[in-house]
Amino acid sequence: MSTSSLEGIFPYLVTPTEPSGKVKENVLADLVEYLISKGVHGLTPLGSTGEGTYLPIESRFQVAQVVVDVTASRIPVVACVNSITTTEAIKEARQMEAIGVDGIVIVLPTYFPLGQREIIAHFRSVAVAVNCPVVLYSNPKFSNWDFTIAMLRELSQVPNIKYIKDASGNMGKLLTIMNALGPKIKVFSASADIPLFVLMMGGVGWMAGPACLIPEYCVKLYDLARGKKWEQALRLQKEIWAFNEVFQKYSLAACVKTGLEIQGFPVGKPLAPQSQLDSSAIREIEELLTKFDTSRVK
Amino acid sequence: MSTSSLEGIFPYLVTPTEPSGKVKENVLADLVEYLISKGVHGLTPLGSTGEGTYLPIESRFQVAQVVVDVTASRIPVVACVNSITTTEAIKEARQMEAIGVDGIVIVLPTYFPLGQREIIAHFRSVAVAVNCPVVLYSNPKFSNWDFTIAMLRELSQVPNIKYIKDASGNMGKLLTIMNALGPKIKVFSASADIPLFVLMMGGVGWMAGPACLIPEYCVKLYDLARGKKWEQALRLQKEIWAFNEVFQKYSLAACVKTGLEIQGFPVGKPLAPQSQLDSSAIREIEELLTKFDTSRVK
Amino acid sequence: MSTSSLEGIFPYLVTPTEPSGKVKENVLADLVEYLISKGVHGLTPLGSTGEGTYLPIESRFQVAQVVVDVTASRIPVVACVNSITTTEAIKEARQMEAIGVDGIVIVLPTYFPLGQREIIAHFRSVAVAVNCPVVLYSNPKFSNWDFTIAMLRELSQVPNIKYIKDASGNMGKLLTIMNALGPKIKVFSASADIPLFVLMMGGVGWMAGPACLIPEYCVKLYDLARGKKWEQALRLQKEIWAFNEVFQKYSLAACVKTGLEIQGFPVGKPLAPQSQLDSSAIREIEELLTKFDTSRVK
Amino acid sequence: MSTSSLEGIFPYLVTPTEPSGKVKENVLADLVEYLISKGVHGLTPLGSTGEGTYLPIESRFQVAQVVVDVTASRIPVVACVNSITTTEAIKEARQMEAIGVDGIVIVLPTYFPLGQREIIAHFRSVAVAVNCPVVLYSNPKFSNWDFTIAMLRELSQVPNIKYIKDASGNMGKLLTIMNALGPKIKVFSASADIPLFVLMMGGVGWMAGPACLIPEYCVKLYDLARGKKWEQALRLQKEIWAFNEVFQKYSLAACVKTGLEIQGFPVGKPLAPQSQLDSSAIREIEELLTKFDTSRVK
Repeated sequence: MSTSSLEGIFPYLVTPTEPSGKVKENVLADLVEYLISKGVHGLTPLGSTGEGTYLPIESRFQVAQVVVDVTASRIPVVACVNSITTTEAIKEARQMEAIGVDGIVIVLPTYFPLGQREIIAHFRSVAVAVNCPVVLYSNPKFSNWDFTIAMLRELSQVPNIKYIKDASGNMGKLLTIMNALGPKIKVFSASADIPLFVLMMGGVGWMAGPACLIPEYCVKLYDLARGKKWEQALRLQKEIWAFNEVFQKYSLAACVKTGLEIQGFPVGKPLAPQSQLDSSAIREIEELLTKFDTSRVK
Repeated sequence: MSTSSLEGIFPYLVTPTEPSGKVKENVLADLVEYLISKGVHGLTPLGSTGEGTYLPIESRFQVAQVVVDVTASRIPVVACVNSITTTEAIKEARQMEAIGVDGIVIVLPTYFPLGQREIIAHFRSVAVAVNCPVVLYSNPKFSNWDFTIAMLRELSQVPNIKYIKDASGNMGKLLTIMNALGPKIKVFSASADIPLFVLMMGGVGWMAGPACLIPEYCVKLYDLARGKKWEQALRLQKEIWAFNEVFQKYSLAACVKTGLEIQGFPVGKPLAPQSQLDSSAIREIEELLTKFDTSRVK
Repeated sequence: MSTSSLEGIFPYLVTPTEPSGKVKENVLADLVEYLISKGVHGLTPLGSTGEGTYLPIESRFQVAQVVVDVTASRIPVVACVNSITTTEAIKEARQMEAIGVDGIVIVLPTYFPLGQREIIAHFRSVAVAVNCPVVLYSNPKFSNWDFTIAMLRELSQVPNIKYIKDASGNMGKLLTIMNALGPKIKVFSASADIPLFVLMMGGVGWMAGPACLIPEYCVKLYDLARGKKWEQALRLQKEIWAFNEVFQKYSLAACVKTGLEIQGFPVGKPLAPQSQLDSSAIREIEELLTKFDTSRVK
Repeated sequence: MSTSSLEGIFPYLVTPTEPSGKVKENVLADLVEYLISKGVHGLTPLGSTGEGTYLPIESRFQVAQVVVDVTASRIPVVACVNSITTTEAIKEARQMEAIGVDGIVIVLPTYFPLGQREIIAHFRSVAVAVNCPVVLYSNPKFSNWDFTIAMLRELSQVPNIKYIKDASGNMGKLLTIMNALGPKIKVFSASADIPLFVLMMGGVGWMAGPACLIPEYCVKLYDLARGKKWEQALRLQKEIWAFNEVFQKYSLAACVKTGLEIQGFPVGKPLAPQSQLDSSAIREIEELLTKFDTSRVK
């Protein structure tokens, strides 16, 4: 798909798996079709929700291929690149581009602690190895590092680095990023943020797991924000926030996989050592889903 | 002052001091008079910005007395209580009430790590020892603990615990607090948050250091939010955010004291071991202040 | 007492208190007399175990006065100085010297985060204000800072800074300190370390809470180490370690106060918001104490 | 090699690599031969120093194969298993056993935070999948979790879990592990510990990166400890500690690779995003190595 810019609701796709770890291609294809039918603006496979760092490299390419094939250029596909070394991440990014994604999110997991120069070098090296737009990603809860504004300013000079998804949950930092680096670097909201306010400040969209479960509500929130219907949007945002609350109590991939199983997509369990949710957490998600009736959103 | 509820802009007052640590009563009185003239809705002496934990107990009472006397019931005075033990905090809170404050903020500094039950017991014991409204305060950056929603739910059952100022900078948590505990517990924004969005979500005001320096801008932001003029408010918020950015780079009390010195209030330096800002930081604050012309806000 | 150097077992004295917070002078005097009779080499009031940061300043001086008076120069008294500001810490240190202590430990609690230069300035300013030997103290679990070797090198140039008690529990760092700064800076073991190994590396003693409860065992350990009877010492160390294990599970002051109550010293409870130990922890300490029969150590 | 128990000096082998990431088999073979000639008691490929988590799975097997082949059962080979999911770790462990290793170290890197039950399940599942002895490994600096004693007690019931290497640097915890779980679980020292003291307490050996650079000194230290020549051992330990000091300042793999390059093994650079040491760090390692003259150790 040829897209000049990424914006809107981009569900972080789960990766449906057998207990053996084998990717369930049909379920993934069904999920993609379903989400497109609900009006989402793009798809983001292989992120945290997608257990990207937990999948062998060949499974990652398999997932990207299925999503690209089923989507068939109807909306952009932005795949996460998860390799822990720069050399492997470059290979992974190029292969993603060869598969046909419309952009990549660079995720940098860590084992050894990294310095600022090492982090900058990684993101720059991977970005310049591809032609597609690049989304920077940081999540200090999962990796032992975070971007400073100075680091982002340096990375913003790479032409195809155009977006950031900062999952720190620090919304003030997002405002600082927009003030300092917009419009060269555009901001996607993460689920630890309050998406409506990110949109209100000037953010371009929301990349998140909850959008797999209530895509029409997320799209509606985005439309209300674009239409500057702030008070109506705020009421919807407060309702949707119940999802974020549950997702922050339990493990992310486990929550979204559980919710999709309840909705009839046999996506399987999170990959061990992550455990499945216990029965009381499952009940909590069930109850939550009953409150979100798709017929209510037109 | 008899006030049924606290709301609006409450500057966190600095404590003007001599190099010896002696409180400069006249400077404090002038600052109070100035801020009232600018339309602030309340005053909060002895918080973090006020170096409350760094002052000997008799200086804390001296500060509260000056602020209460000069304010003379024109607006509410809400003093922070900073003692590290429960027994001393109860004495401090009662003495503050005897001095005539209209409410207290309970700040709990730590040395030994505390468990949830210990934290709850401290806040409850201090709150029930007074009759005035109580603001809960937590700042995980300065103390080694934070409130959970369950802890807040328990504390919300104490009748005069009516407000919280959560300085974690996690705005999603504020929304969860409002969803779960409002309207019994009302939320004041901290400076690590984006105050406009806290107000938009339902917050009742902003307790913060920057309001010492640009009180009329803060009052204007509050008025725009109350008038639901969201887009005009957002433009002002983005401008004001420059203060928060500077305050997060440097030490809080040092920033506000430096700014007030530039504005002609001889409030002195932060108490050692906190150091004064270096010359480049001072210049940064000078430049920032020149952009905020009081004649611009009517 | 005129002492050229501090070395050996220095119990960190608890502060016996009434529920009101009032210091129980007689109980403190009895405890001092008891510990001296058991052969300890010095006394350290007002440290973490002594809840120094939790006591009003006048109670701190009262405690130091009692300990100095009862000790009557038989062994050195090294009092902790706990003020959070430099100005107050200087006053506190000078008053301690006027009371007649033989040395001070500088403890620096924090509220605002401090930079390296601020920390160095605090310790230097307090040290040069007195003539007695100074023990540097750091505890990254209780305050948000730690010494680097470069910071210690700078502080080692102050003539009366002669000792360090580093409570990080990082014994490799102690070896580095000794290699880099010995013999100008001498090292006391903390309870998070294994005291025998600190002595073996060249440490001069052990300043700790457990020595209040089993002083003769601690003295014996020290004597065995000084006599280079390493294997006998190791057997004793492994036995004593049971105390450290319990102390790391529960709150420090609560453990030592509970143990002393069991042994017949009515020292009272830890100051709130610290809570008393629950009944199962009390039982654990009771059982532990029964294994340490004073008649076994000659 | 049939070995009833693992003990002694086990160098953590670096993985010699081309800039492309390709493993340099010949250099690895030379290094193995050299270390065996220096008397080390075992070899540990693919640990942190060996950048195990940074290598594609096929490179990991290639490294293990070379080490097993060259060692030819002269000493035990204990390979690290680094997969982030349980399913992949089981496959990796079984393949290592098929290659012929004498034991495995289970390393558990993390992306999502894990709970205690998830961690226990991972280690147990991998251990029961193989027949060889298993070394538990934890490193809270690199992964976001640590073992508690209760977790270790549970894992100690798996028959072939026989060792632990705890890299927390908390030597008191090692003593607690030995007191609670010895001799079922035997302890190897990590480099953040002081190996002599771990041996003195009852530890069975030292698994570490520095042993690649000064193997004969490490072996000598072990022999002195086994011969209970404590004071001679202590002098040597203090000398060797200079390596640990340098290794804690810089990145681990970068230090050992740099040192080996200086010694004539063309092992290459650490894998990006880890950066190479800068010239002043390289000089520091050069100077250090000149102090360790192999002719001095007989």
